[in-house]
Amino acid sequence: MRTLFHMPLDPACRMVRIALAEKGLPAQILEKPPWADTDGALAAVNPAVTVPVLLDEAPTGDDVAIAPASAIIEYIEEAYSSEPLLPSTSAGRAEARRLTAWFIHKFEREVSALTLRERIDKRLMRRGQPDYELLKAGAEALAWHLDYASWLLEQRYWLAGERMTIADLAMAGQLSALDYIDSVPWEKFPVVKDWYARLKSRPAMRPILRDRVDGLPPPAHYDNPDF
Amino acid sequence: MRTLFHMPLDPACRMVRIALAEKGLPAQILEKPPWADTDGALAAVNPAVTVPVLLDEAPTGDDVAIAPASAIIEYIEEAYSSEPLLPSTSAGRAEARRLTAWFIHKFEREVSALTLRERIDKRLMRRGQPDYELLKAGAEALAWHLDYASWLLEQRYWLAGERMTIADLAMAGQLSALDYIDSVPWEKFPVVKDWYARLKSRPAMRPILRDRVDGLPPPAHYDNPDF
Repeated sequence: MRTLFHMPLDPACRMVRIALAEKGLPAQILEKPPWADTDGALAAVNPAVTVPVLLDEAPTGDDVAIAPASAIIEYIEEAYSSEPLLPSTSAGRAEARRLTAWFIHKFEREVSALTLRERIDKRLMRRGQPDYELLKAGAEALAWHLDYASWLLEQRYWLAGERMTIADLAMAGQLSALDYIDSVPWEKFPVVKDWYARLKSRPAMRPILRDRVDGLPPPAHYDNPDF
Repeated sequence: MRTLFHMPLDPACRMVRIALAEKGLPAQILEKPPWADTDGALAAVNPAVTVPVLLDEAPTGDDVAIAPASAIIEYIEEAYSSEPLLPSTSAGRAEARRLTAWFIHKFEREVSALTLRERIDKRLMRRGQPDYELLKAGAEALAWHLDYASWLLEQRYWLAGERMTIADLAMAGQLSALDYIDSVPWEKFPVVKDWYARLKSRPAMRPILRDRVDGLPPPAHYDNPDF
């Protein structure tokens, strides 16, 4: 069966889960933190030992193990063309891919690597308290990114244009994980809040919003589309 | 005219230049270091203010500005399908994309961010001497990556399979830049050396091997296919 190796609060894993759901592709979801790959099952399918990894039998009959997230996106878009998550024009596709890479790499490095990883990964790996200087730098970078997203969303209904694309799912993966630890100042960014309310009401977001991490409850507004 | 904003010793820029040459797509090459974007020309086409950025009129008539490197690769592969740089099967494409991301992101972070950026970017930006602890960590990581590449190339003629793909160009972008500063221990990795000799003899590599940075000559073997 189609299987996704993931971690619940990992933004790129969330993006892939939402994308699979938007395309109506069921998948078994297995939690595989890279630091606990004692049986080598993750390394066997992805030598970089990162999640997400998608295991699939392609419509062409190939058995494939696909990683990292950017390759999974291109794969599911090519193999399952219904409910496209990339626009049809060259310019539209370039813009959706630019913003997807923005959230997978730039936002990850400047915000989530500081905020989310400091709070969650350190806790899961029992590596002590978060560094408050890093949390502060992450929060400042987050405000800058939310400003940029607001500017885009003032001109466009969705992040990369008039239709929802993988870029929206990449941003949703990041913001939903940060929202789980109540780190998104929604009230200061009403345009982004409206956009997220639209996304939250989609059926594909439900499994993400239902996820809970043991001993770490999300804020009350987390799974409420009217937040 | 088709234009690439680049930096001469940037591995991802080199990958894109080789890919354009392999596909027979001429392009004007403009040097645009992000730290010297005083007129905002780079920021205007890529808000992340990074190189490479490809400006093109797509065969569909769209004017497009494409970044980052991973999006440029997908774009040229879609827009110009002759001389494909991705395999035709799902499994082959997944493997080529996995290794391309490996070199653009993992190798970049673990090796080039330490070795190349410490030596070259600090010099260009006049930010003082390289940190020798970082150079040492980069060299150790490089040996590990070259071991992994050797293992792959013992099983396959090219990095991702029996045909040359974008994964080879991604590794060539990295190793050619490191070789410019004489930082690749070729003699210890003969399988990788053979692979690089094959690549160096391709016409698409010639412009890269002819590039010189003012005041920083490469080692004598740098542009010699019989090295």
